[in-house]
Amino acid sequence: MKKINLCLGIHNHQPVGNFDSVFEDAYQRAYLPFQEVLERHPTIRIAQHFTGILFDWIKKHEPTFIPRLKKLVGRGQVEMMTGGFYEPIMSVIPDEDKQGQIRKLSDFVKKHTGYEATGMWLAERIWEPHLPRPLSEAGVEYVVLDDSHFRAAGLSPEELLGYFVTEEQGYDLNLFPISERMRYLIPFREPEETIEYLRSLGNEDSTRLVVYADDGEKFGSWPNTYKHCYEDGWLDRFFTALDKNADWINLLHFSEALEKLRPAGRVYLPTASYREMMEWAMPTPAIHRYEEFEGTLRSAQLFDRYKDFVRGGFWRNFLIKYPEINNIHKKMLLVSRRLNHLHSKKNGAKLKRAKDHLWASQCNCSYWHGVFGGAYLNHLRYAIYHEMLQAEVAADDLERSAAARKKGWVNISKIDFDLDGSPEVLVSTKSLNAYFAPDTGGALFELDFKPKAINLMDSMSRREEAYHRKLANMKHHPATHDSGGIASIHDLVVAKEEGLEKRLHYDWYRRSSLIDHFLEPGTTLEQFASARYNEAGDFANQPYQLKMEPAKGPQRLTLWRQGRVWVNGTLVPVKVRKTIFFEPAKSLMQIAYIVSNLSSQAVDLWFGAEFLFALLAGNTDDRYYTFPDHHLTHLQLGSVGAVENARQVRLTEEWLNIKIDLQTAAPASMWRFPIETISQSEAGFERVYQSSIVFPNWHLQLGGKKSWQNTITLQLS
Amino acid sequence: MKKINLCLGIHNHQPVGNFDSVFEDAYQRAYLPFQEVLERHPTIRIAQHFTGILFDWIKKHEPTFIPRLKKLVGRGQVEMMTGGFYEPIMSVIPDEDKQGQIRKLSDFVKKHTGYEATGMWLAERIWEPHLPRPLSEAGVEYVVLDDSHFRAAGLSPEELLGYFVTEEQGYDLNLFPISERMRYLIPFREPEETIEYLRSLGNEDSTRLVVYADDGEKFGSWPNTYKHCYEDGWLDRFFTALDKNADWINLLHFSEALEKLRPAGRVYLPTASYREMMEWAMPTPAIHRYEEFEGTLRSAQLFDRYKDFVRGGFWRNFLIKYPEINNIHKKMLLVSRRLNHLHSKKNGAKLKRAKDHLWASQCNCSYWHGVFGGAYLNHLRYAIYHEMLQAEVAADDLERSAAARKKGWVNISKIDFDLDGSPEVLVSTKSLNAYFAPDTGGALFELDFKPKAINLMDSMSRREEAYHRKLANMKHHPATHDSGGIASIHDLVVAKEEGLEKRLHYDWYRRSSLIDHFLEPGTTLEQFASARYNEAGDFANQPYQLKMEPAKGPQRLTLWRQGRVWVNGTLVPVKVRKTIFFEPAKSLMQIAYIVSNLSSQAVDLWFGAEFLFALLAGNTDDRYYTFPDHHLTHLQLGSVGAVENARQVRLTEEWLNIKIDLQTAAPASMWRFPIETISQSEAGFERVYQSSIVFPNWHLQLGGKKSWQNTITLQLS
Repeated sequence: MKKINLCLGIHNHQPVGNFDSVFEDAYQRAYLPFQEVLERHPTIRIAQHFTGILFDWIKKHEPTFIPRLKKLVGRGQVEMMTGGFYEPIMSVIPDEDKQGQIRKLSDFVKKHTGYEATGMWLAERIWEPHLPRPLSEAGVEYVVLDDSHFRAAGLSPEELLGYFVTEEQGYDLNLFPISERMRYLIPFREPEETIEYLRSLGNEDSTRLVVYADDGEKFGSWPNTYKHCYEDGWLDRFFTALDKNADWINLLHFSEALEKLRPAGRVYLPTASYREMMEWAMPTPAIHRYEEFEGTLRSAQLFDRYKDFVRGGFWRNFLIKYPEINNIHKKMLLVSRRLNHLHSKKNGAKLKRAKDHLWASQCNCSYWHGVFGGAYLNHLRYAIYHEMLQAEVAADDLERSAAARKKGWVNISKIDFDLDGSPEVLVSTKSLNAYFAPDTGGALFELDFKPKAINLMDSMSRREEAYHRKLANMKHHPATHDSGGIASIHDLVVAKEEGLEKRLHYDWYRRSSLIDHFLEPGTTLEQFASARYNEAGDFANQPYQLKMEPAKGPQRLTLWRQGRVWVNGTLVPVKVRKTIFFEPAKSLMQIAYIVSNLSSQAVDLWFGAEFLFALLAGNTDDRYYTFPDHHLTHLQLGSVGAVENARQVRLTEEWLNIKIDLQTAAPASMWRFPIETISQSEAGFERVYQSSIVFPNWHLQLGGKKSWQNTITLQLS
Repeated sequence: MKKINLCLGIHNHQPVGNFDSVFEDAYQRAYLPFQEVLERHPTIRIAQHFTGILFDWIKKHEPTFIPRLKKLVGRGQVEMMTGGFYEPIMSVIPDEDKQGQIRKLSDFVKKHTGYEATGMWLAERIWEPHLPRPLSEAGVEYVVLDDSHFRAAGLSPEELLGYFVTEEQGYDLNLFPISERMRYLIPFREPEETIEYLRSLGNEDSTRLVVYADDGEKFGSWPNTYKHCYEDGWLDRFFTALDKNADWINLLHFSEALEKLRPAGRVYLPTASYREMMEWAMPTPAIHRYEEFEGTLRSAQLFDRYKDFVRGGFWRNFLIKYPEINNIHKKMLLVSRRLNHLHSKKNGAKLKRAKDHLWASQCNCSYWHGVFGGAYLNHLRYAIYHEMLQAEVAADDLERSAAARKKGWVNISKIDFDLDGSPEVLVSTKSLNAYFAPDTGGALFELDFKPKAINLMDSMSRREEAYHRKLANMKHHPATHDSGGIASIHDLVVAKEEGLEKRLHYDWYRRSSLIDHFLEPGTTLEQFASARYNEAGDFANQPYQLKMEPAKGPQRLTLWRQGRVWVNGTLVPVKVRKTIFFEPAKSLMQIAYIVSNLSSQAVDLWFGAEFLFALLAGNTDDRYYTFPDHHLTHLQLGSVGAVENARQVRLTEEWLNIKIDLQTAAPASMWRFPIETISQSEAGFERVYQSSIVFPNWHLQLGGKKSWQNTITLQLS
């Protein structure tokens, strides 16, 4: 009789910072009912991976779940898998953190289920060939990956009926290839199709192994799958079908497969993830070309035959594609380096807590963007910075003396923070971090308010996504259940609101603060807000010069540029100089602007300094603007408008209890508008509030060789 | 005026173990004349990389060369590049060795040319994304790579006119993309074509950079290029053309480009090498499919448009494709681990010499095979093992006490040497290593004779190469100079001798020793030698059981298998048992064979034990067989024949001064034949002697439940 070995695995995860309601919904619709069906099918053996984030939530909110899981483990039904506790992309975090995160989850699993996990769920299956060493050093014996990883190494599908051994510098690791076919069958097709497929793979000596492993959210939490899996009984039928065929379908735990079956061979895998991920990681123009190529191959019936040779990009390029993600990543490396240099024994507990915050900030979901909101979701990014900054504040405390902690400090250093080959200026005080990019407009691209552990510059800019093309061509329609089966998320094209295509604006520079603009006469707020206007100067994203001055009074740095501004059809030489003052113990920055007309002729200039504040939402009543000298208040953060002749504006975030006060000595026309991105998500295209732009601007009449001065004060509380 | 920046680089290399005559020829035809032309063109700035292997040879044989090079460095004409001293594939050697090899070459360069090299030539441009950390730690600031690496990350050709910054765990590294177009132009096309191409790339603000870097052997050492470059004056004309256009072609050293130009951007590159290398690294059937795909795309005019998305395999899979290379690699890791664990201060000089041997054994040329002979060249592999075994003998000495060194030892251990998930048995004595694969026929797959530092099992098996298809279809013709230009090596299809296609035999198991065969009646030596016969038993590559016995007398291990042999159309249960005895201080192995008929019927069995001895050549008079009891001698090692009723055979390698004596207690029919591979090389298809097979075989008439015993002695001296 022909037999087949089968390993099943389920990966359950929710990101750091996700809403409680989402955790609860996924728990009720997926994790809990899945477990209940499993309890009713004692013969079904399956591996389960819960990320630490999810375990923490479950432990707190659903205390009966883990003891029930432990029972399933105890009776041999469930094999537990480990992974990075906070589900980081393993290849882009420091080795110390890789090991720390894995050991933390392994310890948790051991403590709460009694299982010594040796298998690892690798987040998003982002593979790099040097991983066997750090993973092996953390006690990992196997990892499950997609079969496409193996096919990229030149292996054919028939060769993938088993597990493989790889190594790095002599450290070995077992790799299980997940069958793509099985991922498309389960749970989307009737169980019989899976059984028939397995039947076609069996052999007499029972040496072959098929691996299925996928996200647990597909079983109840994805659109329409709750009804399908539980109300319509798909999962029950599936387990029953496996049980009915138990004479030839041999369910094995992964760890048992390692013991009972010989490896199918050795292998080395190139950098890879699943096909879609490698497409998303490319620059948008490359995705367009790639889609064109794939389309051409499909029309010519060549794609399925040769798709192993057709490949997209490399995961790490999300860090290039989105400078905002690079900002998160490089900041994370900075904080990690500081913590990993601290070996303070007397501060052991504090350091441990700090590292835990750091690890939480490594949660992968904000580090990329594909079909899920990911990096575009501001509440997830907020959570990441919130964790990272708590870790950093702990590092501040651990590194500095009690006196320094009391008095405060201003530290100004020049380093290549974003590792682009040009230095940035990093200012750190007791209560603020202010990071400047001399090379790019002298902009303030990170502003951390330490008491609240928030980066107020944490906004995505609006840029073209490959899928925006679809939006332009689609009609708004709600998600519908296609009667022919459950649609995979990849097939859904819906929008959460009408008219999104009209809100597609693309920024030509990275949105942040202290960006210096010169406008042409007649430019409207709407044009400026939609980035559809002509910039009259060459300052916004161009190199500034830098002076870091040791000063007796407040510490300061100066950025200036001699650029040019179009005025009445001629280019006028203009200098913009901004000196920024810091104080050791205050959450305050003062910016002294000098705009100089370097020509001998009198000119009219329309100058403005762009400020950005990334708070949590634009359209709620507890987040609003106030213009004190105009007695205006409760203007939502998502509102668009101009207040003339204003000297003050306040942004209030009641939920976070943060107030931002911007004052200008010279009365300004104060423009405001939100940055909102249009991105793809599980539930369709959606508009996401990123930040509120405040743009004080001034009409200057400057005689030849004359200057205009103004001081702007930014105060956080 | 439109200007362009241009960096030029030349990489010069000869493998460890190459013949002196090849070094001398490449020196006279390429390295020296290149330098002479350079000396006559003082305005030409160029980076030069010489591997340590080549530097060592040049220093010894051509002592005036390096002082002349130093002059070129001194007058700013030449920038020196570093790299691994012995040109290893960086990604597959231990981190300690990566750093040791780079520092050794940097030190050499500094000492002999005065230049502090910060740029690195990465062997075969085998890139993996974790390399920035170890390279940066070894003082490397930039690496040059192919533009195809960058295009695989989704970058378009227009974006590649500059250098890029990458990082790993915060360690940054600059990357220069080599222009593929320039590699095809230089030196194959007239200089004007390069000038015109450069002209098309210039811009007004002179911010763009074009990079050319390639093998120095293309300038004189490749077929026909000496005449082209020097006699016909191509190189002189090329430099003159650059000089004539110096007003807009700005020659920069790489290190100057880093100072003067801003990076073109940040980037992360996937695992990659040049296109051809990624094709060669795939399994042969995958190469066939890949070529089919590429051909289809080319006919449809799609290849050039979409080739960035069309990719082959991953370099490390050469270690899968060729188990013999894996053997070299895993042995290297083993020796490296031993040496890197030794921190003996009193043995510093000895350890340093040992590490140098180890590093020499990491020279890449034997670790892969493409259009060059590489792993198929037995003299290169010999040199690799020769270095590695000298390092290992030093480790033996450093690890063991004086008494142990004197008395000798036998150490038998079971470890997963080849990291395939199944253990091997490693026997080490004072004068021998004998490695057995219980899982694969109980074969002896490595036999190191330590006094001569040679692995006598170091033979490639004969297997299908993708290019063998061409051989079947071609006619023998000498390399001809196509009058339309110089043919690139990739286009040449020639064979060094006629009838090679008739010598294409493919082995169905890895050739080594102690391989147990049962033959069908009538099998001829020719059939057996060409691997075109029916194996009657299931022993040759099947799992054996293992017993490692602690013994009072000689140390021993036993391997046995209960298998089956086809006899007159029925399968007869048969057991083969081989016990191998070792002695602490002798270069001797005794193998006691017992072949048992497990059935009750009498059967005729034709049994033989295959031995392999890899020496240096098959067709020279100083390497030969002797059959002492038949007074036969001076039969070349490449000869084919059978000597009946023989008890002894000796293989003599006069050049290495090695004698191998095989004695069998039961007189045997002693078959012999060489293993010769047909492989591609720079100069066309060639036949390479790999090893000599000695196959003593016996016709056994075994009654029911009866056994046959025999003892074979293998003595090395």
